[in-house]
Amino acid sequence: MTDTVPQEAHLSQDARFSYEGLDRVIHEKARLGVLTSLIGHPKGLAFADLKRLCDLTDGNLSRHLQVLQDAGLVELIKGFERKRPHTICHLTASGRQRFLDYLTVLERVVRDAASAAKADDRAARILPA
Amino acid sequence: MTDTVPQEAHLSQDARFSYEGLDRVIHEKARLGVLTSLIGHPKGLAFADLKRLCDLTDGNLSRHLQVLQDAGLVELIKGFERKRPHTICHLTASGRQRFLDYLTVLERVVRDAASAAKADDRAARILPA
Repeated sequence: MTDTVPQEAHLSQDARFSYEGLDRVIHEKARLGVLTSLIGHPKGLAFADLKRLCDLTDGNLSRHLQVLQDAGLVELIKGFERKRPHTICHLTASGRQRFLDYLTVLERVVRDAASAAKADDRAARILPA
Repeated sequence: MTDTVPQEAHLSQDARFSYEGLDRVIHEKARLGVLTSLIGHPKGLAFADLKRLCDLTDGNLSRHLQVLQDAGLVELIKGFERKRPHTICHLTASGRQRFLDYLTVLERVVRDAASAAKADDRAARILPA
């Protein structure tokens, strides 16, 4: 039966939905929030601001920043403000570019899913039950 | 110093970038591909088609389908075709709705990041170095 069913155009495109560009370092939910916060602030954001914007605990934010730093996406500048430790986080130039590349793929996911959802009825007519 | 810096509008919005709606069951890269494949096929897709579309191994696809099934997002119909086991996967009605809700949040991430990237220069003028 399946052999005689017309192939849909996108079924013949192998690995169309593998989304290789969704770098797991960036895609993780909390890190996605951190990067989105940082991309608007080229001079960086204080640890406390990031914590509040992303609703993360000290430990979680530290852990995610470490992952992002190890991957070369962010830099941390540790200093003092009013004699208290003060950390500023900012995107690196290559981190900014990688995040923008990732966003291009993410936009494609949203577009693919939206157009697939709309194509429901058409697909129902040509695929086997 | 920080106290005298004007607050940007979005810095005063607590947890603006926490993206609570990014359900981790859906957000995982491979499962995102599976759900995007399925949303255009309300009558379901065969295991082999999903495997090819998402570029996953048998083991990986089985594992991810199990997670999606446990969360009530997909249903698996196991049968036979030409005497060989044949599994059809499809989104449940609530799975479809949850995936559409997730996509709304994902669209917001893309929009937030794009507008933050454009606001670079303005932010650079009002945030401390």
